[in-house]
Amino acid sequence: MQIRTDLALEAREMINEKKTGALKDVGKLPEGIIMETTDKPNVLVTRITVENDEAAQAINKKKGRYVTIELKDGELNSIDVYQEVAKTLCDELEAFMPSKNPSIMIAGLGNWNVTPDSLGPKVVEKLVVTRHIKDSMPKDSLDPRLGNVCAVAPGVLGITGIETGELLQGVINRIKPDIIFAIDALASRKTSRINTTIQITDTGIVPGSGVGNKRMELSRDTLGIPVIAIGVPTVVEAITLAKDLLENASGEELEESLYTSISKTCGAEMVVTPKNIDIAIERMATTIANGLNMTIHKGFDFGDINDYLM
Amino acid sequence: MQIRTDLALEAREMINEKKTGALKDVGKLPEGIIMETTDKPNVLVTRITVENDEAAQAINKKKGRYVTIELKDGELNSIDVYQEVAKTLCDELEAFMPSKNPSIMIAGLGNWNVTPDSLGPKVVEKLVVTRHIKDSMPKDSLDPRLGNVCAVAPGVLGITGIETGELLQGVINRIKPDIIFAIDALASRKTSRINTTIQITDTGIVPGSGVGNKRMELSRDTLGIPVIAIGVPTVVEAITLAKDLLENASGEELEESLYTSISKTCGAEMVVTPKNIDIAIERMATTIANGLNMTIHKGFDFGDINDYLM
Amino acid sequence: MQIRTDLALEAREMINEKKTGALKDVGKLPEGIIMETTDKPNVLVTRITVENDEAAQAINKKKGRYVTIELKDGELNSIDVYQEVAKTLCDELEAFMPSKNPSIMIAGLGNWNVTPDSLGPKVVEKLVVTRHIKDSMPKDSLDPRLGNVCAVAPGVLGITGIETGELLQGVINRIKPDIIFAIDALASRKTSRINTTIQITDTGIVPGSGVGNKRMELSRDTLGIPVIAIGVPTVVEAITLAKDLLENASGEELEESLYTSISKTCGAEMVVTPKNIDIAIERMATTIANGLNMTIHKGFDFGDINDYLM
Amino acid sequence: MQIRTDLALEAREMINEKKTGALKDVGKLPEGIIMETTDKPNVLVTRITVENDEAAQAINKKKGRYVTIELKDGELNSIDVYQEVAKTLCDELEAFMPSKNPSIMIAGLGNWNVTPDSLGPKVVEKLVVTRHIKDSMPKDSLDPRLGNVCAVAPGVLGITGIETGELLQGVINRIKPDIIFAIDALASRKTSRINTTIQITDTGIVPGSGVGNKRMELSRDTLGIPVIAIGVPTVVEAITLAKDLLENASGEELEESLYTSISKTCGAEMVVTPKNIDIAIERMATTIANGLNMTIHKGFDFGDINDYLM
Repeated sequence: MQIRTDLALEAREMINEKKTGALKDVGKLPEGIIMETTDKPNVLVTRITVENDEAAQAINKKKGRYVTIELKDGELNSIDVYQEVAKTLCDELEAFMPSKNPSIMIAGLGNWNVTPDSLGPKVVEKLVVTRHIKDSMPKDSLDPRLGNVCAVAPGVLGITGIETGELLQGVINRIKPDIIFAIDALASRKTSRINTTIQITDTGIVPGSGVGNKRMELSRDTLGIPVIAIGVPTVVEAITLAKDLLENASGEELEESLYTSISKTCGAEMVVTPKNIDIAIERMATTIANGLNMTIHKGFDFGDINDYLM
Repeated sequence: MQIRTDLALEAREMINEKKTGALKDVGKLPEGIIMETTDKPNVLVTRITVENDEAAQAINKKKGRYVTIELKDGELNSIDVYQEVAKTLCDELEAFMPSKNPSIMIAGLGNWNVTPDSLGPKVVEKLVVTRHIKDSMPKDSLDPRLGNVCAVAPGVLGITGIETGELLQGVINRIKPDIIFAIDALASRKTSRINTTIQITDTGIVPGSGVGNKRMELSRDTLGIPVIAIGVPTVVEAITLAKDLLENASGEELEESLYTSISKTCGAEMVVTPKNIDIAIERMATTIANGLNMTIHKGFDFGDINDYLM
Repeated sequence: MQIRTDLALEAREMINEKKTGALKDVGKLPEGIIMETTDKPNVLVTRITVENDEAAQAINKKKGRYVTIELKDGELNSIDVYQEVAKTLCDELEAFMPSKNPSIMIAGLGNWNVTPDSLGPKVVEKLVVTRHIKDSMPKDSLDPRLGNVCAVAPGVLGITGIETGELLQGVINRIKPDIIFAIDALASRKTSRINTTIQITDTGIVPGSGVGNKRMELSRDTLGIPVIAIGVPTVVEAITLAKDLLENASGEELEESLYTSISKTCGAEMVVTPKNIDIAIERMATTIANGLNMTIHKGFDFGDINDYLM
Repeated sequence: MQIRTDLALEAREMINEKKTGALKDVGKLPEGIIMETTDKPNVLVTRITVENDEAAQAINKKKGRYVTIELKDGELNSIDVYQEVAKTLCDELEAFMPSKNPSIMIAGLGNWNVTPDSLGPKVVEKLVVTRHIKDSMPKDSLDPRLGNVCAVAPGVLGITGIETGELLQGVINRIKPDIIFAIDALASRKTSRINTTIQITDTGIVPGSGVGNKRMELSRDTLGIPVIAIGVPTVVEAITLAKDLLENASGEELEESLYTSISKTCGAEMVVTPKNIDIAIERMATTIANGLNMTIHKGFDFGDINDYLM
């Protein structure tokens, strides 16, 4: 009967809701949770740090840092907004980078044949990767701004028969990157967050949280190197929407029997998603890829990226 | 505050719900509505006739015939089910055919770039069309089973700037078919109907009912020839799901103010759809296309269709 | 044994080749053919006018105007080149526009499922269409720069069973535009032209010239309104490449028997195309769509287009 | 000036051509090459064994076994042909299987965004993979016919920055399969072979031979386990077609200078491919996937596969 949310921001809101019984002002933070925000023209940045185990338990999220970039206006629908989001992503990722010139691996999680789950693979296609040219070309002939980056789209368990974590363990062991960025579609509690929120965290990720079953975690614990997860809610599970609606209406937690009956109505496999999901995912993938391209290749701007990719 | 449903079956259920206040046994039919069912191994066929204007008003559906083919087991997930559905579609369409050898036009409505709205264009791609070879080849050299059929995928207003109805009027006026079959994605009230129900009706269709705004109706009134609509629910609007959940929970109709507040939560552009919508639409398109292929080309079986299309 | 070329530029070169026996300097022009060129940083513009029937016969092209925009550097691989090509297209189209504020229809010819033939439908998806909002919104609330434009992607004969010309006749008769722009993939004689040359002509077009059989012509004669064709070579037929290679090597025209034997080797259905055709078509479609968007909506720049389409 | 062919059958033909100067009857085999054929209704199976280093040098192919399945009629255009090809593939793969119940990994090489290079990834999508359910479900509840198989689509160097061989080394080291099947698009010398020939070999494969540059070989030498390559020609390089045409016409080897000049005309990046490549690749992928599904899951027939995948 547990509600699925992958966003620390929402997890925090849920504590307060539990106390108050319904959607209310989010009040005092539990101890050990630090939160700060930056207000930009088109986006709101929220940085949450979960400092200790008590705080982690309170919020039901792992100890670590969570940065959320929220679109104020609800859609990635102009060049200005797109550029501000990509630059903000680039700025915030700075704080997660381990060293001056790390070798980076980017993992685009998810299934390229299932639209709301295709964010990760789509980001991979839009990256300026360099590991192969760094290795094979004379150093002098290379653009000095280029960082060292490679990328994989490991696919999903149902198609490969291999846990994403196992596959990445094998590849990491061979390629030996310093850090991994894992991009994935997430589940949210609110439809308003779909394709409008980006979460960065150093606590890792469980692939398939967005549209699939929970699996082996990708984190420093399991992969042995820092794992920075970049997630975007692309769906709300229908059952989550239903539960929230009914609890907000009644002001009480849903009874087990009613939950079970709604589960049948909503269908375990049903998700809420915007009509224009194909276009929205495409745009979000471009935004994240270019935020990453500017993070990795110091001094790149949008024109540079286009020249490299065209 | 009107609930959207394109299915006569659901419309009928709604009357009884209104009377009883919640989902109950569907009782006596209003006068002027005739209903009969056929139970097959994997599908249930329901034939509803709305005989007069009073009945039409009672059920909020136009006067005419509505046939619904429902998958009993909830998914088009085996060859046996697929073949039974396609054959049933072929059998039921028989009753809507106007004459021995009509020239037929098939219109695949919707947007091929928006997955839940791409059913119509996908059906068009899987048809065995013949109008051009009927015209250009000597009659003796043609397979005598071949009917006369052409197809169009007119696109959607937002991309073309042309109402589907206007475009079809122009084409019909030039091509002069005897009858038109219009395939479209519909909106349903229940997630359980998504990709599991096919409705055939001779009352026409309003394009974009499934995922878009209501537009000019396609019917014998507007197009001048019989219009047989074949529709499949591919989404439930999030707001519809929400309204039904809350009304069933409370046993009362939703207050206007609450409805408005939920509209914001659910998002006007949000739909409920299964995770595997890409695959589900592909299968349903194959099923409908082959039901049509067998209806039009008398004596064709699945092997014949494959040989023609491969 | 006729070589297929849809480009007037190539047709003209062929006359001189015939005289000289092989690829040589293109010498004096036949009478009645006027040619002028403009040299820009990244593109070369050639304007050919075929003034009379003798000239038309000499060059085997219809009487009328032909403008060719050629990429000097062989690829649409930077933002600068893309913008210069789109702006040049916009400038050249000016001369083909019939009146101050025409109502325009754009026809994207070809098959969206066959990559080298999908240019037309892809252009349609990237247009800012307005006919439906011009009709339904109060004039004051509209951006005054917006022209009146609608678009269709009529599909191909093999899928629809309807000649593109017939379908357009029907639609034009209903919608009554002042002018039609028809976008299509063409066949060229030289691989170097693939995705690097845009031809504009007021002589019309025969759909499917690029990858298909010759069909009913689209022109003022058949459609009753001016038809401006915008074509881009996306393939060279394998047999054309073979014939040219052998004739250039031998300095003589190919014998009939050898041609027949090569036809078998090359395969009637074989085309020469770049490996990256998917990406190349996508870029060219964006370029042409935005050239058209700037032509139709006076004063639009690239940012405006993006804001409208995002 | 070396011609690219990945087919042993073609390599053998080339020796005899060199001796005779042009395409002639293929005469006596070099010593150490054994060849046998089986003639079936729709396909011709040729089994070539290169027994020793001298033979390998003579034919310019590695020592090992090569099986070729050729479509007699040139196209995979009916259910009968499709089923015969898939069953033949299944029968021939038998001879390459190492033990009773091996754990198998299938690698779908190539780029899913470049149509003629997308065969490998498309095969992966159509496989019935089982490794994850074998591991997690009680043995009794599993269909006893199911073998143990997983699959990866490693992507291409230009998008990932990682050599396919490196990535597979990492994954194999973690997953420890007994054998790997690698599916890839190949280059051929003859357009007639495109999408009509399947080659199986135990000598491994160099990824990107079809449409890309030569890279690190995948073979038992580099990966440490048996590598069975399944390749299908999907393109002929334009320069190969040109060279063959001119040499056959003249009866002499092409001069270096002429070759260089033709290279420019044909374009290094130009390939010959059928117009309907999108459909042809789809069908071939289904055929190979189902040949593999029947090989791995003993006793499966086409109905079983469909039930598992639907």
